[in-house]
Amino acid sequence: VRVPGFRASGVHCGIKPRAPDLALIASDVPAAVAGVFTRSTVVGAAIELCRERVRSGRARGVVVNSGCSNVATGAAGLRDARDMASAAARAIGAAPEEMLVASTGVIGRRLPMQRIRSGLRRAAAELAEDGLPRAAEAIRTTDTFAKCAHASVRVGGRRLTVAGVAKGSGMIEPDLATMLAFLVSDAAASPAYLRRVLREVCRESFNRVTVDGETSTSDTVLLFANGRAGNAELGGAAGARFAAAVAEVATALARDLARDGEGATRLVTVRVRGARNPAEAERAARRIANSLLVKTAVFGGDPNWGRILQTLGAGRVAVDLARCEVRLAGVTVFARGIPAGEAARRRAARGLAKPEVEIEVALGSGRAQARVWTCDLSTDYVRINAEYTT
Amino acid sequence: VRVPGFRASGVHCGIKPRAPDLALIASDVPAAVAGVFTRSTVVGAAIELCRERVRSGRARGVVVNSGCSNVATGAAGLRDARDMASAAARAIGAAPEEMLVASTGVIGRRLPMQRIRSGLRRAAAELAEDGLPRAAEAIRTTDTFAKCAHASVRVGGRRLTVAGVAKGSGMIEPDLATMLAFLVSDAAASPAYLRRVLREVCRESFNRVTVDGETSTSDTVLLFANGRAGNAELGGAAGARFAAAVAEVATALARDLARDGEGATRLVTVRVRGARNPAEAERAARRIANSLLVKTAVFGGDPNWGRILQTLGAGRVAVDLARCEVRLAGVTVFARGIPAGEAARRRAARGLAKPEVEIEVALGSGRAQARVWTCDLSTDYVRINAEYTT
Repeated sequence: VRVPGFRASGVHCGIKPRAPDLALIASDVPAAVAGVFTRSTVVGAAIELCRERVRSGRARGVVVNSGCSNVATGAAGLRDARDMASAAARAIGAAPEEMLVASTGVIGRRLPMQRIRSGLRRAAAELAEDGLPRAAEAIRTTDTFAKCAHASVRVGGRRLTVAGVAKGSGMIEPDLATMLAFLVSDAAASPAYLRRVLREVCRESFNRVTVDGETSTSDTVLLFANGRAGNAELGGAAGARFAAAVAEVATALARDLARDGEGATRLVTVRVRGARNPAEAERAARRIANSLLVKTAVFGGDPNWGRILQTLGAGRVAVDLARCEVRLAGVTVFARGIPAGEAARRRAARGLAKPEVEIEVALGSGRAQARVWTCDLSTDYVRINAEYTT
Repeated sequence: VRVPGFRASGVHCGIKPRAPDLALIASDVPAAVAGVFTRSTVVGAAIELCRERVRSGRARGVVVNSGCSNVATGAAGLRDARDMASAAARAIGAAPEEMLVASTGVIGRRLPMQRIRSGLRRAAAELAEDGLPRAAEAIRTTDTFAKCAHASVRVGGRRLTVAGVAKGSGMIEPDLATMLAFLVSDAAASPAYLRRVLREVCRESFNRVTVDGETSTSDTVLLFANGRAGNAELGGAAGARFAAAVAEVATALARDLARDGEGATRLVTVRVRGARNPAEAERAARRIANSLLVKTAVFGGDPNWGRILQTLGAGRVAVDLARCEVRLAGVTVFARGIPAGEAARRRAARGLAKPEVEIEVALGSGRAQARVWTCDLSTDYVRINAEYTT
């Protein structure tokens, strides 16, 4: 997919032995930009730089490397991040402070700046309107597939396009399970408006994904909008349609992150209803999604509703057992305090064998609900994270 | 070990196919008793009954079954728990309300009351002063070994003995990772005094263990003291010595629980220093102890300090990287913002290969500290919990 006025590329510069490891996404004109970053108290140099720079609300693009996260590298690491952005800016004829930067990979190692500089010259030369899939390739770590998505809407006779790329929890360099996503649009929108849209969209998409309950030092989501569509100011119904397009792209990418979690064999959607309030609904859904016992049961295809009740109880969620209902893969396995029969259990087990499964819980305590995406916990997750030695 | 005035037994009554599954611990005279129970919002019938009964501060003993947790069984389950206690009380000549009860095993199934009643008659007949190890056998689920410990102290010319049995996270009936511990002493102590000692001891022993971050619906710790030692009222230095003996037994059992965690290959002690306050120190230690990335690294013998910093950051712990220090198996691998060299890494890797390992982190933010015991996360943990299908 092409988004007018945006070009991208992905090249191999030598941070990783073979695979593409350097991506560039650039707007032909200064774009409005909004960013959302990790809430970890330990963050990489790229995060420090980006947090500072997105405040202006304007940028020409972002340069991203995989294979080295530039975390715990001190003042020298911050200088490297700034130099990397400057080199990328120079290569596309932008001012240094107009370029953002993101890094993912091993912690505690310096960026190989010489390789990055020469790689950037090639990346700039290869920038192309259809280059986003190559950028998606270059930001992968152990992701098993590159993640791209796009959507478009008509607003006041103009077509607005949104496209995005993302990477998930890769552990070939196992210090880090970084989540990166970059969304671009030709919409005309103010930075303040973009910030609001991005914050709301992230809350319901990227922030609804968990693979192993960890938060990376480098999580970054950026949304660029360069105005090439020439639409009028966004707001009201038109703004809602634009936000829906951004949400569509973000949700597709978020689901792909969960589907491609480390060692995952299944995409799991957890839906909780009947909570006393939205915070408790979300806590309940995250509790289920992060429970080792639930995740290993899904890996084993076991319709184990007992573990779901157990982890809700452990998480101090208000559960009214007499009114609670648990559905696995669409089959009710526990309702009104009573386990469903053996036939239901067998039907649920068949459903759990599929690549996409739903866990639905009605708590019976109120009216609030929440949804979270996750994956199962497999022996491969342990193997990947145990056998690799830095 | 024998504790004067206490007798115990363990028999097979047929809840499980073969192994002992019914334990009885009884005092010849009414004993003072204190209890600590799960804080889960979903609890079993035994917990409901015990919470009510320990309030009196007096009991003659406890009957415990493994193989069926009697959780999510409604009003009938509560009746079963009461009947089980009554049958045990009758068998030893106590009043029904003097008997406590605990159950561990699969969720959502009724207790086989006929088998339990006939088992109890045999259990009562086999009660013996040296029977605690047999009780420890009978409360196991997938624990790979039975857990007993004892200690004694001299108080005012009298010898006080404390002995205890415990079970950890067994998953042959995989709905549950119940922690049960029963401690008995011949000390003379008031129920109020016992409660205070037990609460303080639990905080630093059983509450410092985590295998997979889950809390069972049936966790129970009971401490009985029958006064047979004839000591004067406990308090001051004598009370401190008694509390230390209880703590010694509880700590030995707690460490055994972590050592014998589901699929565990290593006992891991996590020590955090330099936190801003005790709550943050504990949060940091638990964050490390529950991190899948840290636990899989320990399983792999990988001195991966990056994952430790990552999970502290994700847990919003205040880390001053410039003053932070990480020691693995006694070897400093990260200090003052700088990774230690390759030689240190290799030494740490050798240390991590041993059956007991220490993770020590100095946060550099304050003076508070905390300690937690855990185990590594192995492919066997996933296999055990995935392959068993209820």
